[in-house]
Amino acid sequence: MSLVHAMLFDVFGTCVDWRGTVTRELERRGLPAELADAWRGAYQPQLETVRSGEREWTDLDGLHREALDRLLTARGLAVADPDELTRVWHRLDPWPDTVEGLTRLKRRCVIAPCSNGHIALLVDMARHAGLPWDAIVGAELAHAYKPQPAAYLRSVAALGLQPGEVMMVAAHNADLAAAAALGLRTAFVSRPTEDAAPGGDWDVVAADFLDLASQCGA
Amino acid sequence: MSLVHAMLFDVFGTCVDWRGTVTRELERRGLPAELADAWRGAYQPQLETVRSGEREWTDLDGLHREALDRLLTARGLAVADPDELTRVWHRLDPWPDTVEGLTRLKRRCVIAPCSNGHIALLVDMARHAGLPWDAIVGAELAHAYKPQPAAYLRSVAALGLQPGEVMMVAAHNADLAAAAALGLRTAFVSRPTEDAAPGGDWDVVAADFLDLASQCGA
Repeated sequence: MSLVHAMLFDVFGTCVDWRGTVTRELERRGLPAELADAWRGAYQPQLETVRSGEREWTDLDGLHREALDRLLTARGLAVADPDELTRVWHRLDPWPDTVEGLTRLKRRCVIAPCSNGHIALLVDMARHAGLPWDAIVGAELAHAYKPQPAAYLRSVAALGLQPGEVMMVAAHNADLAAAAALGLRTAFVSRPTEDAAPGGDWDVVAADFLDLASQCGA
Repeated sequence: MSLVHAMLFDVFGTCVDWRGTVTRELERRGLPAELADAWRGAYQPQLETVRSGEREWTDLDGLHREALDRLLTARGLAVADPDELTRVWHRLDPWPDTVEGLTRLKRRCVIAPCSNGHIALLVDMARHAGLPWDAIVGAELAHAYKPQPAAYLRSVAALGLQPGEVMMVAAHNADLAAAAALGLRTAFVSRPTEDAAPGGDWDVVAADFLDLASQCGA
């Protein structure tokens, strides 16, 4: 851990509770709760169209709105405020331990999101949820979506560091596998909506962000 | 002001006291204080070599180190730790009103640096000086140095805003003139080491960051 000068965090699911927040916003509009998982389910196939080069860089507002329109149409539903509903992904609520854990970790090293969310979305979310980031890096810097290597490597370079000086934190094994293959350190954090258990030889396995902070001496 | 959703800040001279901090670090090493102004004086000609395309994007660590070597050699001087001394530009001290002013303004809207400093430098400076940025944007996002338009426009776009929704804050008239030409709002703040007086029709002219916050209703 003494070599780790920065920690990069996956955001959706790892820092914030997308399913709980999106479900609440859907139900407030009288929409079915199952739309939350369907909406999130559209995400990886959409990202793949950007990763493959099938279409140009498109940020998550564009992708989330497109998926919402498709899902509502398929169900014969409509909403009065599709752009406003799409921006629910900007105001996801944190897990109960997220802010305290990040605040402790920030005393120890640089903390930043390395998310597929774009900068504007992550700024809104940080202000909504109180996430005390030192900087916002991630997919937008490289115009590459995780797990593409450039998303991690451009983020590491923006912090002026080498991959071995940076720890990737996620509740997703695939995210950590991609980071580890590039030489980053890894920490798996358990979250109820995400991967059920660690599925790799990660440097740290933590129950939540408070446990992560303690294991990192923060 | 009700249309302003974000404020972008020049950093060197506007938020932090480069001359005071650099002078103290030089004197601690037994080097002449006049080197501080000579070092800063090398800056714009160096940036111009990048702006003109004469050489590829080079960050300020590279430019500052190159200028230091040249200035020391010209004076028959040497230091044991040139990289460490170069990093003084990462740990510049804030003006006395900077942190309180930014903290007040952050309650009102998004705040971020739009500096020619690179992300790693600005992260170190924010942690050293306690600057509570929401995000770090600026020259590195566009690989363009102010006053090139892309440095401002890429920063505005990264925040998901239009130029008219963003106010540029600087103690330099040239910086504000470039921003105003692109449609940004402008605020001039007086700083003892920088431009002596406002030299344009700026939206706000403030004595310091506390006055700026008050004028912005923050």
